[in-house]
Amino acid sequence: MVVIGAGFAGLAAMADLARLGWDAWLVERQPYTTFQPLLYQVATGGLNLEDVAFPIRSLLRRMGRGRFVQGVAASVDWDLRQVTLEGGQTLSYDHLLLATGAAPKFFGVPSAAELGLPLHTLVDAARLRTRLVAVLERAAADHTQHRVHLVVVGGGPTGVETAGALAELRDLLAGRDYPELGRDDISIELLEAAPRLLPSFHPELSRYARRELERRSVVVLTGSAVRQVQEGAVLLDSGLRPTDLLVWSAGVEVADSPLLRGLARTASGRLDVTPSLQLPGHPEAFALGDCAGARAGTAELPQLAQPAIQAGRHAVRQLRRIRSGQEPLPFRYRDRGTMATIGRRAAVAQLRGGLRLTGTAAWLAWLGLHLVELLGVRNRASVLLNWTWHYLAWRQAAGLIPPAPGPG
Amino acid sequence: MVVIGAGFAGLAAMADLARLGWDAWLVERQPYTTFQPLLYQVATGGLNLEDVAFPIRSLLRRMGRGRFVQGVAASVDWDLRQVTLEGGQTLSYDHLLLATGAAPKFFGVPSAAELGLPLHTLVDAARLRTRLVAVLERAAADHTQHRVHLVVVGGGPTGVETAGALAELRDLLAGRDYPELGRDDISIELLEAAPRLLPSFHPELSRYARRELERRSVVVLTGSAVRQVQEGAVLLDSGLRPTDLLVWSAGVEVADSPLLRGLARTASGRLDVTPSLQLPGHPEAFALGDCAGARAGTAELPQLAQPAIQAGRHAVRQLRRIRSGQEPLPFRYRDRGTMATIGRRAAVAQLRGGLRLTGTAAWLAWLGLHLVELLGVRNRASVLLNWTWHYLAWRQAAGLIPPAPGPG
Repeated sequence: MVVIGAGFAGLAAMADLARLGWDAWLVERQPYTTFQPLLYQVATGGLNLEDVAFPIRSLLRRMGRGRFVQGVAASVDWDLRQVTLEGGQTLSYDHLLLATGAAPKFFGVPSAAELGLPLHTLVDAARLRTRLVAVLERAAADHTQHRVHLVVVGGGPTGVETAGALAELRDLLAGRDYPELGRDDISIELLEAAPRLLPSFHPELSRYARRELERRSVVVLTGSAVRQVQEGAVLLDSGLRPTDLLVWSAGVEVADSPLLRGLARTASGRLDVTPSLQLPGHPEAFALGDCAGARAGTAELPQLAQPAIQAGRHAVRQLRRIRSGQEPLPFRYRDRGTMATIGRRAAVAQLRGGLRLTGTAAWLAWLGLHLVELLGVRNRASVLLNWTWHYLAWRQAAGLIPPAPGPG
Repeated sequence: MVVIGAGFAGLAAMADLARLGWDAWLVERQPYTTFQPLLYQVATGGLNLEDVAFPIRSLLRRMGRGRFVQGVAASVDWDLRQVTLEGGQTLSYDHLLLATGAAPKFFGVPSAAELGLPLHTLVDAARLRTRLVAVLERAAADHTQHRVHLVVVGGGPTGVETAGALAELRDLLAGRDYPELGRDDISIELLEAAPRLLPSFHPELSRYARRELERRSVVVLTGSAVRQVQEGAVLLDSGLRPTDLLVWSAGVEVADSPLLRGLARTASGRLDVTPSLQLPGHPEAFALGDCAGARAGTAELPQLAQPAIQAGRHAVRQLRRIRSGQEPLPFRYRDRGTMATIGRRAAVAQLRGGLRLTGTAAWLAWLGLHLVELLGVRNRASVLLNWTWHYLAWRQAAGLIPPAPGPG
């Protein structure tokens, strides 16, 4: 058994495989896994790098089974049932779980990939934090031009959360750690191409999010697609807007990889899968999480943690059926709801059965869910410590130490 | 007033200047300060990056006074009393405190600067941790050659502490997170040119340190100067020894900087200072900490936190005397003792009045002192959390997540 990718889907599968006592190899480029939903907190100084990352080997040790190989899977020989890693190492499998994830999507916008800062990996979050400090220091040192333009592209959950966190950070730093900068010297803009923020949420929640962001002096521009990115500016249909920091959270797509060559794709570029999440023509292989085009009804599932975790667990259940001679069952996604937080005691939650929450209730739900889902006990304690400090003591927890920019 | 350098000396001076209500500019290359004595813990995964670093602006805000300028001081115009930063910004001063610190010393050993990994900055610690993980992963993946050689050069406190921490880490990882590697597959060697470890400590403590390290399967080679560093090996008089990771903790020296051009130096290259720590011929300027050749009797003071802190406080007291028309007094270093830890409940401490401690007592003294001296309340809580985990739960706290190698 080989599992490629140690995100939510891959790790959920490894955990269930360990429970069955089955051996499996887990292949991942980095020796750690990342809790992606909280990367925006790392980027804005509310959490430390180590709060949202965890060594894969420690996780496997706790699971009690499973072996790790650090590496990049480069190709699959479907006839030999063998994965080859960059560098030449090969792993044979009887069953293969592909959970290679996604990458930031730039929609072909000129220079967006070069100048925009995504929030997809731990390195992205570290880079964003470092740039943010550099931008603030430059403005503080420049006696002629203080104004700083922080621009977030994409009004989905990540963009909303990032803009909200930047607004909180501005209020914590302006006039305090940065006596040179007033609150009005730091402008925060959130750009969304669609007519409203959080397009996947109920319009009532979109309106709430916009109102709460605007209360925090975030300029929200909906119906504002970015046509081009330039050094220090973005071009909208309405003209150029200056940027000192450009966060690119406009969406994700399946990363181009030689590993996926020759496999059928859906219209959105995700791997085509059967209702049971197997690859068409390769019943020994499953595709899970962000890289796979699993559906609920006619729509593809959102590329979020919950569908990935459920897919990982589903795949192991079906492997068990297959090994005992039964037919695999179709995947049934159980929507436990989606949430996004705007700031302290302000969030939106869209739960099962059409239940919608806003404000403190949604925020507490968000907080509880993320604490429970965070991988690892120690991380949970550390995050709790940071957040207690952050939210109760009303000051910045982690400060804004730029992560060490060592060359690896 | 301008203070250059935000290490122990510069920050101690800023704190006392703030207490007097005097304005001062603090210049530092990074926006954070680093608690250097614990960098070896960051490198070996016992602490997180953010546990030993703190944003300078937050520190100044707590002090209630003092302004920060991120930058590198490039030159001093002694007649105009003006510091010029790289980039051209100038700062005028009435009094100048130079606390620019030191840098790793490579003793002219060929390739040591290129291939050795020092432990002097946060970036160094991050790089060392990343390399350590890479070395272990490579060994785990290689079925033909498992043996890993971790070599520490320099048997002073940093080298002893690093070797001890590596030994603890090996025992935590071998056969557990790394089932591929046995305890004997990871060799740790400590090389010291002098005839004994910890040459600045009492010989009894040197013997204890050696015994404790050897109990932890660290190979201690004294009288073993490194003659040359090569890719994958170091050359000693006794021949070549293989290295997969080479920690260079052989000592520090004053970094070559255009800022110090034209200033008199001592035989060891440190800035020559009067007994009151002023620069000869520049009574308006003090030199403090690692960059300065302050003496106790005829010997230069060790380049450690305590002399630096005391020098910073001394300088502010003398500035106060000078401003009230009094003569500055000579600096009197009050030796509060030095310590080094080898591992859990094993340390050496050499205290005032010739008192020497080893074992649990010394370890608890070390732990208490470092917790008390750590900058910032939150850091203290976080370090305590990590250490509680580390030492009481007998497992690795921070794990070994390589710090994000972002390009800044």
